[in-house]
Amino acid sequence: MQLGVCYYPEHWPAHQWESDARRMAELGIARVRIAEFAWSRMEPEPGRYEWAWLDDAIATLARHGLKIVLGTPTASPPKWLVDQHPEILPVMRDGTVMQFGSRRHYDISSPVYREHCARIVGEMVRRYGRHPAVVAWQTDNELGCHNTVPAYTQAALQRFRRWLADRYDTIGALNAAWGNVFWSMEYRHFDEIGLPQCTPTDLNPSHVLDFRRFQSDEVASFHALQAELIRAHAPGRDLLHNFMGFFTAFDHYAFARHGLDVAAWDSYPVPRTEVLPLGEADKHRWARTGHPDVSAFSHDLYRGIGNGRMWVMEQQAGPVNWAPWNPVPQPGVVRLWTWEAFAHGAELVSYFRWRQCPYAQEQMHSGLHAPDDTLSQGGREVAQVGEELRALGTARYATQHASVALLFDYEADWVVSAQPHGADFDYQHHVFEWYSALRSLGLDVDIVSAHADVAGYRLVVAPTLPILPDSVIAQIERGASHWIFGPRTGSKTSSFAITPELPPGKLQRVLPVRIAEVESLRPSIRPAIRFEGAEGHALRWRDRAQPGAGTDVLARFDDGVPALLRHGRVSLVTACFDEAMLRAIVAHCVRDAGIEAILLPEGLRLRTRGPLRFAINYSDEPHAVPAPHGARFVLGGPRVEPVGVAAWIEDD
Amino acid sequence: MQLGVCYYPEHWPAHQWESDARRMAELGIARVRIAEFAWSRMEPEPGRYEWAWLDDAIATLARHGLKIVLGTPTASPPKWLVDQHPEILPVMRDGTVMQFGSRRHYDISSPVYREHCARIVGEMVRRYGRHPAVVAWQTDNELGCHNTVPAYTQAALQRFRRWLADRYDTIGALNAAWGNVFWSMEYRHFDEIGLPQCTPTDLNPSHVLDFRRFQSDEVASFHALQAELIRAHAPGRDLLHNFMGFFTAFDHYAFARHGLDVAAWDSYPVPRTEVLPLGEADKHRWARTGHPDVSAFSHDLYRGIGNGRMWVMEQQAGPVNWAPWNPVPQPGVVRLWTWEAFAHGAELVSYFRWRQCPYAQEQMHSGLHAPDDTLSQGGREVAQVGEELRALGTARYATQHASVALLFDYEADWVVSAQPHGADFDYQHHVFEWYSALRSLGLDVDIVSAHADVAGYRLVVAPTLPILPDSVIAQIERGASHWIFGPRTGSKTSSFAITPELPPGKLQRVLPVRIAEVESLRPSIRPAIRFEGAEGHALRWRDRAQPGAGTDVLARFDDGVPALLRHGRVSLVTACFDEAMLRAIVAHCVRDAGIEAILLPEGLRLRTRGPLRFAINYSDEPHAVPAPHGARFVLGGPRVEPVGVAAWIEDD
Amino acid sequence: MQLGVCYYPEHWPAHQWESDARRMAELGIARVRIAEFAWSRMEPEPGRYEWAWLDDAIATLARHGLKIVLGTPTASPPKWLVDQHPEILPVMRDGTVMQFGSRRHYDISSPVYREHCARIVGEMVRRYGRHPAVVAWQTDNELGCHNTVPAYTQAALQRFRRWLADRYDTIGALNAAWGNVFWSMEYRHFDEIGLPQCTPTDLNPSHVLDFRRFQSDEVASFHALQAELIRAHAPGRDLLHNFMGFFTAFDHYAFARHGLDVAAWDSYPVPRTEVLPLGEADKHRWARTGHPDVSAFSHDLYRGIGNGRMWVMEQQAGPVNWAPWNPVPQPGVVRLWTWEAFAHGAELVSYFRWRQCPYAQEQMHSGLHAPDDTLSQGGREVAQVGEELRALGTARYATQHASVALLFDYEADWVVSAQPHGADFDYQHHVFEWYSALRSLGLDVDIVSAHADVAGYRLVVAPTLPILPDSVIAQIERGASHWIFGPRTGSKTSSFAITPELPPGKLQRVLPVRIAEVESLRPSIRPAIRFEGAEGHALRWRDRAQPGAGTDVLARFDDGVPALLRHGRVSLVTACFDEAMLRAIVAHCVRDAGIEAILLPEGLRLRTRGPLRFAINYSDEPHAVPAPHGARFVLGGPRVEPVGVAAWIEDD
Repeated sequence: MQLGVCYYPEHWPAHQWESDARRMAELGIARVRIAEFAWSRMEPEPGRYEWAWLDDAIATLARHGLKIVLGTPTASPPKWLVDQHPEILPVMRDGTVMQFGSRRHYDISSPVYREHCARIVGEMVRRYGRHPAVVAWQTDNELGCHNTVPAYTQAALQRFRRWLADRYDTIGALNAAWGNVFWSMEYRHFDEIGLPQCTPTDLNPSHVLDFRRFQSDEVASFHALQAELIRAHAPGRDLLHNFMGFFTAFDHYAFARHGLDVAAWDSYPVPRTEVLPLGEADKHRWARTGHPDVSAFSHDLYRGIGNGRMWVMEQQAGPVNWAPWNPVPQPGVVRLWTWEAFAHGAELVSYFRWRQCPYAQEQMHSGLHAPDDTLSQGGREVAQVGEELRALGTARYATQHASVALLFDYEADWVVSAQPHGADFDYQHHVFEWYSALRSLGLDVDIVSAHADVAGYRLVVAPTLPILPDSVIAQIERGASHWIFGPRTGSKTSSFAITPELPPGKLQRVLPVRIAEVESLRPSIRPAIRFEGAEGHALRWRDRAQPGAGTDVLARFDDGVPALLRHGRVSLVTACFDEAMLRAIVAHCVRDAGIEAILLPEGLRLRTRGPLRFAINYSDEPHAVPAPHGARFVLGGPRVEPVGVAAWIEDD
Repeated sequence: MQLGVCYYPEHWPAHQWESDARRMAELGIARVRIAEFAWSRMEPEPGRYEWAWLDDAIATLARHGLKIVLGTPTASPPKWLVDQHPEILPVMRDGTVMQFGSRRHYDISSPVYREHCARIVGEMVRRYGRHPAVVAWQTDNELGCHNTVPAYTQAALQRFRRWLADRYDTIGALNAAWGNVFWSMEYRHFDEIGLPQCTPTDLNPSHVLDFRRFQSDEVASFHALQAELIRAHAPGRDLLHNFMGFFTAFDHYAFARHGLDVAAWDSYPVPRTEVLPLGEADKHRWARTGHPDVSAFSHDLYRGIGNGRMWVMEQQAGPVNWAPWNPVPQPGVVRLWTWEAFAHGAELVSYFRWRQCPYAQEQMHSGLHAPDDTLSQGGREVAQVGEELRALGTARYATQHASVALLFDYEADWVVSAQPHGADFDYQHHVFEWYSALRSLGLDVDIVSAHADVAGYRLVVAPTLPILPDSVIAQIERGASHWIFGPRTGSKTSSFAITPELPPGKLQRVLPVRIAEVESLRPSIRPAIRFEGAEGHALRWRDRAQPGAGTDVLARFDDGVPALLRHGRVSLVTACFDEAMLRAIVAHCVRDAGIEAILLPEGLRLRTRGPLRFAINYSDEPHAVPAPHGARFVLGGPRVEPVGVAAWIEDD
Repeated sequence: MQLGVCYYPEHWPAHQWESDARRMAELGIARVRIAEFAWSRMEPEPGRYEWAWLDDAIATLARHGLKIVLGTPTASPPKWLVDQHPEILPVMRDGTVMQFGSRRHYDISSPVYREHCARIVGEMVRRYGRHPAVVAWQTDNELGCHNTVPAYTQAALQRFRRWLADRYDTIGALNAAWGNVFWSMEYRHFDEIGLPQCTPTDLNPSHVLDFRRFQSDEVASFHALQAELIRAHAPGRDLLHNFMGFFTAFDHYAFARHGLDVAAWDSYPVPRTEVLPLGEADKHRWARTGHPDVSAFSHDLYRGIGNGRMWVMEQQAGPVNWAPWNPVPQPGVVRLWTWEAFAHGAELVSYFRWRQCPYAQEQMHSGLHAPDDTLSQGGREVAQVGEELRALGTARYATQHASVALLFDYEADWVVSAQPHGADFDYQHHVFEWYSALRSLGLDVDIVSAHADVAGYRLVVAPTLPILPDSVIAQIERGASHWIFGPRTGSKTSSFAITPELPPGKLQRVLPVRIAEVESLRPSIRPAIRFEGAEGHALRWRDRAQPGAGTDVLARFDDGVPALLRHGRVSLVTACFDEAMLRAIVAHCVRDAGIEAILLPEGLRLRTRGPLRFAINYSDEPHAVPAPHGARFVLGGPRVEPVGVAAWIEDD
């Protein structure tokens, strides 16, 4: 694994670049990402390009052996372009036109903007595509960020109508699929269809879901436009985009098929924990480290999206600026996050940013150096972890498949958000709770697409999967894996209707059960359940299941409603639960599948990479690691300190 | 009482209709409401009508002896009409134009839309007005729902100016009535007057109140347009509209004078309880049954609006889709609601809907059947209650006047919301608290207009009546009833100014008292009071009363402020109170009026219909019913189970 | 000190004026403010002026010896002017155009509106400028109220661009100052610059700060336009504006330099306490009196802004209408507020209003009389305090400088709100907490500009000062005062960048320390600290300080982070604290400066005016006053009752 850093030469006087490059190399940095917001410097006037400064910056970095990740600047079009073409500005769901003055002030559906993107990216790749120091290209920056996807422009509407015509062929087919006879929503032509916004009451969820699918495709094709130019002019270079954590505005699996060598993502564990829909107790508990599963979740997700290749493109290295509150992270946790990324298979951890920028929007976002150029606490930890990584020699450790696969599905998020039915049901949070339960049992988890081939996994977990792919049933029928499904599974057709057999839909073929009724639960309504000695509660949701022939009810609520059902290798969990009860239920299923589960203490997590076994301690107490007698420690020892990491080889 | 159901033949294949009709009849259904959202099927292209499907649907239902309630489809104009006339779209208070894609996307003030409504309704009534199976007509659907009234269109503005010119004749009269000299708000012509929206600070409440009155008249005249066509072409048929629970956007008493035979309303006790401004404890306590007074309140209100004729047009029969959380109702409560409706005088309880629709916006709204056509829990309860009703033979039981009348006034709601003075003062909630106190004392209550003749009542209760009609004073002076008035009574003139004598205004003629000051109270400020052995608190509001000659102060707060005053048969309650204290005060006044009050246990309610006395148990404990020795039980027995109903005849 | 009243003759029949004027004089009223919302009566049609009514009103008041404060009517342009020039309507940050129908419906940047203001004010001052009874002029009313500043109109944009061109001369200088290279925000011309609104993510805080500065200048120049006319035509009259409490939309120090003789302000202690960001416990505790430091803070602030001359132009005299809840104030507190104003140096306390207006927006705002013309509780207290003031003979008591100066800075508020970094960091609230700590120690405080000459003060307190003026450092270096600075001090340059030396910037010259990191803290994260026997917590914010040579760390948090540092006469407090801990730290610094601190009981406050020492008791318990043996009481005695006031002369 290499270390990297995000650097903005245009923010600093040119005479400082040499010193910066030298010290990067000294700190153990191998790769530097640059240029992704510098359009106004590349093309200060329409059609007048200035490359000399970028030539110099790249040359300076290269001189010190640094390799460049070059970003296209399309996330921040200059003012002159906006003034020439104000129609490229994005429009929010409430109709507000977003203005120039920050970033992402453009509509990815705009043909005019796409043309200008192709032009500036074309100029860049023709100039730097074969530069020996430029080893990778990043398109745009955090596509879809700041609620800019979905967007509600006239350009998007025109393309949406064509997308629908392609999908449905006839307007009759669309009317039938969407159920437009309801409330006289029938259309006579595709040109009658509008954007799903500003209606007196709920929109048709089929309309919303197709719009989400269309917008997801728009993001992918916007990327593809640049990806094709990069492929054409930058042969052999890694092509990537820097995704975000816990972000579902587009289908990342589909995106990856439009040209992607590496799934890079931006990791900010502390603010992410603050803004996720976690409980107050969790937000407080992990305010200075991030929740122990927040980074791991995205590592495991993006490793799958990148088909095994995952980078952390931006790694928090100190306090940031964008959460409601921005505490100083716990000393040591930057090192911990770095080791954790390695344990989860990262090829690169690139810190954000080299030096805190003293001006503009992100001036309160720290970096490896303070604005006065002294090394920050994060910078000192990077120096330490860099040496540790070199000492270990990380290159020889490959990542292998886990025994547990967790199915993640972007459409599931769109389905749930289009019609939550319960105000506090959040798809990502729901999946995260299940992931966290598995991780708290000491398990490695691969997060994979709901359409993935999961033949190699002993256990496959789908916390919920409203639209159940046929391939899942086929794999259950022909494979040997154990499967667990959560509530709402198989509840919808791909057109967003209730499945004709009732939920869990096609799953009934392998798990005979009928969900007769479902209910969302206000926070005060918490049906009680006892299971294997534990007492707990359902939260938010219950499916009321009627078991069919051969289906066992393994757990029931106190009021008799089934909570856990099983038929052969397939189990169904019918509700959301408090943390302890969910862990008890998942642990039962895990052991059923013949997998060993370790009840880890709070904040301790394990992870395997090749022969290396890691213990990562997010808590504020030391813990004994579950290493066998005779394990050889390559990092730390059998007692892992708070915010510490240990690694060992079990059979050496 | 008959049972009915809401049915959408256009949602299902025609071959299914026959089976549906047959099973309706078997289930004891007598009436079926259809067609109220089917414009796009009636007129798929401008001017091209298709009636064959509706002919067939009606014929099929009629063949099984079912009677039809036919709805006009004007709550969902088709897209082609919106595209022809985008000016018919409604505009919200913040200026947002609401778009096609759900329902109610039209402006009731639009002359163009009114013309198209008259056209489609005209076509319908000429075709079906004299059809022997079509026994009733419903105009539109839930007028004003989804905050579409008041509306802020240019068409509304034009009509508002004319309405004002009619009301005030001269602009000087309007300026004087509104007090426009304040802040230089004087107008020179009616055409200078704008919509009451988007001002830097508070609008003139007189402006707001007149706009609410105007909008209320608009709803009534929109209905009247259809009502006249129905009267002309559907002679002898019942004319109705399906009102909503706890909805005050227009004056239903005035509406009823524009053509109405039956006040039908849509009853959703569980979600209504979730969204009303009740306390969290109440929302939790009644999450699966609805609050014990929520349905009863609307039954008693609409029975009055319908001049004795009341239907439940849509009755919740299982979980719904539109509250923040949507739990499965308590088993048995659909039966309970049905009996309760009968006890309160309903002629019809019509369930929503025959079968859960698997697609579009309401796919998570249950019905008597699941989407797979199996009877739901609610459907099974309907089968039971249908048999029970037939066994009893309900037709012979008429509803009589209660001994207590509660005055309800839509203008009072507009006055309070135009200038709440305290952030948590809600008119409907305030009235509901008083109603609930009366009901918890075992009383039957008639809810009547503030302008009604109440000569026959022993006690008349006005929880608040800011604009006090002259007729109230006249009735006090000439009648023998006891009267109780709540806070804010007589505080405003009809032009929304403080009454010249100070509150309680004209009431001073019969109750000498002067409200020197009023105060709204933050939730933490709860003035203490002791009364008849109970300790309690004021909440939200206190009028500071100075009693005049002959007025007794029956209760004072600990700080000396009068809480309950009386002069002869007239009492004044000066504040809002916690539930127990309000009950104590109301009980005192009830007994004063010579009416027996029974302190019912939590969740138990009584109601009389003809000789029948009902006990309805919303609680989760069994209760002994207060039936006299020798009472003859026609339903249940002397112990009423949780979610149970008993009925007896006292002297048979 | 004189008493005054706000009066609206246009609201009442002319025959009532004589009686009103007579009774004002009888009540001890000396001055009457009139006319500030009467444009529609002064110019009912474009260009047609009507002055007769105002001539009469002034003559009637003057006949009874009353002096007039005449207000210009520009806060409420009439409808005909808005209809002639709809472009004068203001625009909110979200783009909403505010409409006619309340007040402040105009854009201060509009050249058309400025022209009409000059016209109507010109007419007024030419007619009344030399009238012997008209002794003072108020411009407009509460400029900036109702979020009308900043405003987002095209007129504002045009003027903003010119303002920027004046400030920066070249666009390159602006780009450099704002750091526009960040995110390609560079401009090529001043005409490319937009309003800071509606961007996908955060605006550049430099853009926001300059817009706030510009808007502040707009308010001042809008006032100046009228002030020049008044100066020209009303020689020798006091020129004033009625400012608001806790209002920072413009720099009042800069405003005062555009023509101001007296800083008048509008005092509403009870609703102000309800709407300030205080804790719930404080809001409850002081719900009927106002927080004990709320009025005092504004008195001390505006006394400084008025260069020693301060009036209360509107004094709450009973319940008001505009807070979420509006309780009746504690009896006696109107008298208390009046004495408190005197103690803090007021020349006039003018009550709002003579008589409660029974109609329009403020009908629920009380006055000295109820709408039925009977004296209110507040009116009775005014009668009492008027006699007390006359008995004392207040004219002979001058106000002297305090020993403690507190630095207040409007730019600091704009800096903090442009980039709060922590969601609950509010500049005014932060300063208020420090002010309250000083006042709870029995100290008199002068609130002065951060640019003021503070040579005469023993202690200078800057609760925070992000942009540290050079003059502060110069005064520290050459003076003998002790200084205390709070967190965030010296953190920003005047262009809104991090100071190159890192915070506290230039303060490092006199206090060697480097703020290496800062953190904002969620409410649950409260770092513990023990100091001088007390245990407490940081809240919201911590600067992580590294002390330099010669700097002592006087207090540390339990985790070792420095909390209080000192070098010579300069102390730095690095965090926000709970009330008790802040008081302990401030008390330490106060005693260090050689000033005696008295730990006052809750709700008791002291204040000195000339030889008079006041004790003001906001609490509901009596307190012994800290008067020395032999003190001569001129008001009350050594025990001050709840809501009472005592005053004594120590050495007579």
